[in-house]
Amino acid sequence: MKSLVLEEQHVLSLRDFPEISRAEATLGPRDVRIKLHTVGICGSDVHYYTHGRIGPFVITQPMILGHEGAGTVVEIGAEVTTLAVGDRVCMEPGLPDPNSRASRLGLYNVDPAVRFWATPPVHGILRPTCVHPENFTFKLPDTVSFAEAAMVEPLAVGVHAATKARIKPGDTAVVLGAGPIGLVTALSALAAGCARVYVADLSEKKLEIATSLSAAITPINVRSESPASVVARDTDGWGVDVVFEATGSAAAAARVFEPLCPGGCVVMIGGQPEPIQYDAGAAMIREARVENIFRYAHVFPRCVGMLASGAIDVKPLITRTFAFEDSVHAFVVAASAPASDVKMQIELPQ
Amino acid sequence: MKSLVLEEQHVLSLRDFPEISRAEATLGPRDVRIKLHTVGICGSDVHYYTHGRIGPFVITQPMILGHEGAGTVVEIGAEVTTLAVGDRVCMEPGLPDPNSRASRLGLYNVDPAVRFWATPPVHGILRPTCVHPENFTFKLPDTVSFAEAAMVEPLAVGVHAATKARIKPGDTAVVLGAGPIGLVTALSALAAGCARVYVADLSEKKLEIATSLSAAITPINVRSESPASVVARDTDGWGVDVVFEATGSAAAAARVFEPLCPGGCVVMIGGQPEPIQYDAGAAMIREARVENIFRYAHVFPRCVGMLASGAIDVKPLITRTFAFEDSVHAFVVAASAPASDVKMQIELPQ
Amino acid sequence: MKSLVLEEQHVLSLRDFPEISRAEATLGPRDVRIKLHTVGICGSDVHYYTHGRIGPFVITQPMILGHEGAGTVVEIGAEVTTLAVGDRVCMEPGLPDPNSRASRLGLYNVDPAVRFWATPPVHGILRPTCVHPENFTFKLPDTVSFAEAAMVEPLAVGVHAATKARIKPGDTAVVLGAGPIGLVTALSALAAGCARVYVADLSEKKLEIATSLSAAITPINVRSESPASVVARDTDGWGVDVVFEATGSAAAAARVFEPLCPGGCVVMIGGQPEPIQYDAGAAMIREARVENIFRYAHVFPRCVGMLASGAIDVKPLITRTFAFEDSVHAFVVAASAPASDVKMQIELPQ
Amino acid sequence: MKSLVLEEQHVLSLRDFPEISRAEATLGPRDVRIKLHTVGICGSDVHYYTHGRIGPFVITQPMILGHEGAGTVVEIGAEVTTLAVGDRVCMEPGLPDPNSRASRLGLYNVDPAVRFWATPPVHGILRPTCVHPENFTFKLPDTVSFAEAAMVEPLAVGVHAATKARIKPGDTAVVLGAGPIGLVTALSALAAGCARVYVADLSEKKLEIATSLSAAITPINVRSESPASVVARDTDGWGVDVVFEATGSAAAAARVFEPLCPGGCVVMIGGQPEPIQYDAGAAMIREARVENIFRYAHVFPRCVGMLASGAIDVKPLITRTFAFEDSVHAFVVAASAPASDVKMQIELPQ
Repeated sequence: MKSLVLEEQHVLSLRDFPEISRAEATLGPRDVRIKLHTVGICGSDVHYYTHGRIGPFVITQPMILGHEGAGTVVEIGAEVTTLAVGDRVCMEPGLPDPNSRASRLGLYNVDPAVRFWATPPVHGILRPTCVHPENFTFKLPDTVSFAEAAMVEPLAVGVHAATKARIKPGDTAVVLGAGPIGLVTALSALAAGCARVYVADLSEKKLEIATSLSAAITPINVRSESPASVVARDTDGWGVDVVFEATGSAAAAARVFEPLCPGGCVVMIGGQPEPIQYDAGAAMIREARVENIFRYAHVFPRCVGMLASGAIDVKPLITRTFAFEDSVHAFVVAASAPASDVKMQIELPQ
Repeated sequence: MKSLVLEEQHVLSLRDFPEISRAEATLGPRDVRIKLHTVGICGSDVHYYTHGRIGPFVITQPMILGHEGAGTVVEIGAEVTTLAVGDRVCMEPGLPDPNSRASRLGLYNVDPAVRFWATPPVHGILRPTCVHPENFTFKLPDTVSFAEAAMVEPLAVGVHAATKARIKPGDTAVVLGAGPIGLVTALSALAAGCARVYVADLSEKKLEIATSLSAAITPINVRSESPASVVARDTDGWGVDVVFEATGSAAAAARVFEPLCPGGCVVMIGGQPEPIQYDAGAAMIREARVENIFRYAHVFPRCVGMLASGAIDVKPLITRTFAFEDSVHAFVVAASAPASDVKMQIELPQ
Repeated sequence: MKSLVLEEQHVLSLRDFPEISRAEATLGPRDVRIKLHTVGICGSDVHYYTHGRIGPFVITQPMILGHEGAGTVVEIGAEVTTLAVGDRVCMEPGLPDPNSRASRLGLYNVDPAVRFWATPPVHGILRPTCVHPENFTFKLPDTVSFAEAAMVEPLAVGVHAATKARIKPGDTAVVLGAGPIGLVTALSALAAGCARVYVADLSEKKLEIATSLSAAITPINVRSESPASVVARDTDGWGVDVVFEATGSAAAAARVFEPLCPGGCVVMIGGQPEPIQYDAGAAMIREARVENIFRYAHVFPRCVGMLASGAIDVKPLITRTFAFEDSVHAFVVAASAPASDVKMQIELPQ
Repeated sequence: MKSLVLEEQHVLSLRDFPEISRAEATLGPRDVRIKLHTVGICGSDVHYYTHGRIGPFVITQPMILGHEGAGTVVEIGAEVTTLAVGDRVCMEPGLPDPNSRASRLGLYNVDPAVRFWATPPVHGILRPTCVHPENFTFKLPDTVSFAEAAMVEPLAVGVHAATKARIKPGDTAVVLGAGPIGLVTALSALAAGCARVYVADLSEKKLEIATSLSAAITPINVRSESPASVVARDTDGWGVDVVFEATGSAAAAARVFEPLCPGGCVVMIGGQPEPIQYDAGAAMIREARVENIFRYAHVFPRCVGMLASGAIDVKPLITRTFAFEDSVHAFVVAASAPASDVKMQIELPQ
């Protein structure tokens, strides 16, 4: 069977990749083998395709793409106790050294030794099967589809951001950016207890999608009004409890404190390649707390639980699905960044 | 106009109460006068009626009942800036000394100087109008009815409990007790981010009401199974993140740690008149955190926000409404504690 | 008796100031009158003298300077219960509106209504007596001198910073800046549980003073080595738990994350007039938490307690004392910023 | 060479124990071999000797005692990078499964899979050498003696308790119990920022030792006065911020809330074999937080850092030292619980 291989920048092929089969021929005692069913296309996958690198991570040899996946357990290691063959699962794509200092503290996502799917030199999972440790593989209840389960990975970013914000019930929030991460953050903030979430973006189309997700979401088109002015009007000048920066735009980051209330929290989600402007005076007079997040930790089983109970519904975010045989085309479409799409997924043959 | 006066234990009358009108004849500069519209009947109101006292608080002279209220502003003090005549509002019933040590710390609910409606010697609000400080009076949006707004007071207990628990998105919880406080706690826990809430009680009828509130609520009838066994089965033996004790029963309190996960939190909501048994060993091996709560603080505007956005729906909890002229009868009914009722309310003439 | 009046930029005079005596002729029921004994000279006092303004606060009419004070109660209001005539006290110089939204939350320092001594148009306390509310006036035990008590105000900044950092016992910290605020922060960080504090500055003289304060302080002269390199060497590359930015220098702020460990905290103390550079990538890979602080709240009685028990010793920081009649000269000296001085104080005639 | 073996209840012998040498003949890649230098005698060691069991842990076959140890690295595994032969070290005695759910969360001390020295069936370290994982072995600076380092294990209990309490600088605390754990807790609470710590006990001799440790410790002999009354007198009736229960006495536990301030924290350290009385009403009106702790996690390197910098001095607690050849006698002495002794240690031949 074939894998989706990024041969080099701009060059994708669907082809055999025998190295990975050999590397994963045998299973460790605490590993499971998973037949992939659905894999989402992440912006980072597309960025490796279009740019050949992300910051210091450079494509220097062929690499299989994909890290947002769900599938079925087809084999288990000798010491595996919580999973069985036939279990439907989703997988957390970053594996730390469990004995590292960061891991021991519970901060495994910031362990420098983390190996993350589809980040050179680690292969991704747009391929028939993969091998993964039991304790980073999470069983799905019947009510969660493979498509929803393949959304757990991006959703985890939003849930981690909402967790770090320490949202209290009845908080209000602004999410800067209505891209996929902005939208899962808005859903996560609502699920975490927000009474109202303002979503700000430049694109009316994206704001329409945001607005359709919940009656508790208020769109702000930053072309016509600033988040600070809308929030000030709605809150008698007090501000929102949390601002999530999910644009990755330096211009947005420079004004993150403006809509924030005294004692409020800003969560920086969007990666920023360059130093940004930080309005220290605006942060100081509010005694703002700023949380900077990196991927996520401890939230995959929480996401599965919230999808299962209906606390979060990600189905409206899955806007297009491709067959695996069309995956190269899928990436061409994704690279064009159609404004009406949030998440595209690829289904593997079963 | 008349007030509902508890003359002494077992004796209620609907009569003129000129003392209160005289006492509230003039408005302080930061006070507002509110015409009452809806007032809920609380278990404590009923308890004063049936027992003449609650712990150290004894009815020694006639007292007006009622502290769960909503109404309309009809007059404002000279320095009031955030409210206007005609605003629909609900009111927080406990007033601390704003200059006390506890208040300065933000812990105004545990200020010993708090004066609380319908707690001797302070009169309640089952009367035509009341005077209240602007900053403990909260404006309602059009979408929140007076009946819902009169639910903010009991809801606040649940929201405060959920806030103190520091629920993270995707947590699971057990609520011990399906009375009014247990139910608002279950709704609050879900709104605060829980993926699933188990509600435990002895009464099948109450569990039916609980179950009807959300698909994310799982009932446990403790006559047939223990919370610990249900939770262990559903969580591979791990436990829930939070246990809320809302029965006030010593038997329930003695086993609160059993369904709790390592590092989890128990919130003691139900008042316990006598020392209870505390399983220190069970608490220790989990490194349990225990939060003990007393009423609420800072949550009224949060509750209004969540009712307005639909994050919490309390309407199913309002099971019966009486006209003010029938209030004495209403208390007779409430004192019989019908299993199919959650919250009874009284509507004042407008 | 005379007051020290800043008539306008560069012009100080020691003269009668009858307006203040008239304004404070009568005492509110919860106020006390204090005869001043010792008042410290703060950098902000000097800045008003040398520049005539601090940001938006401009000297447009004569203003009495001084806000770091200690003295003796000479009169009490009718409802004062915790203080008596003859009590030795220190005073918190910022008074919020106790009924404001921020105050109710316990965040009184960020209440926009705060009135702060020696900040236009509010007069300071380089004068014979002042009137102050009982609950912002703190009794001194016999073991704390007036000179130490007048250090509580600057110390409070350091203690508030250390509190916000949520230091755990055995943490390590870097303090950027060895000026008065840097030094009280270093002492506070040690008192709050740090096992070791690195203090970084350009001035060897200031670093000598820092080093003399505790064997647990390690100096770093940033002319010869970076905080990040020293910390990396001492911690096997892990980093310190907390970085305190106390320079107010944009260059220092741009590199605050470099010595920080994964999951660590940066506290921004130094006011920054302009937006600063924020290394979002460095913050992200550490999941840094950033706390921005504004003055202090709730720490005055804590500071008094720590001075009394010996947990913190501020005496080495008091490097020069002037008689009140020499106060104009004292400001001339302070304006020259001698490197060997930390805190200068003025003693009033008794 | 010989080991100190508890053959059965009341029977100790110093003898060869070849099984352990065989079991530890080879080193894992991330393990180190340590030559023991100093081992402290813990109350649990003595309890196994005098009672043959602690709760469910029963001595059914010969077991080597001792878990408070320090020594020198004499061999390292192939992948060890942070330790070298000749390094002086202390060792954390409980080893979790690094891949367990609790460990991943950073809660490794509550992992049910923990294997703890001198807890059946795991042997202790009163023997010539032991093998231990690199990441639970902590290098000592030259300034920390073996005797001090062997105190890190009991000290860790106090530091963990102080950490869980989230002490803020200037807090006040009561420690109930002046035994070894009470004393390390008092030292930890001071190091963590307390301005004053009250230590309560029945024994005047133990209180004398407590008082000698710091001028910031105030003794309370509970035969003559209650902690609540002393604290009320010193704090104008407000209470202390933290109460540490370190007696393991049900009578003490029943009154833990009495000296506590509103919003304060109780830390339950002493293991309680039976359910205790919990004054729910007293907890409620204070909104008390209760932390239950189990051993410690993440604090060994912190303790080493605090011993090195002088933040904590444990030397006064080491009241008697025995040669290894006298270990059986040492346990006979320890079993008599002399009131003037805090910690007895055993030195192994080098």
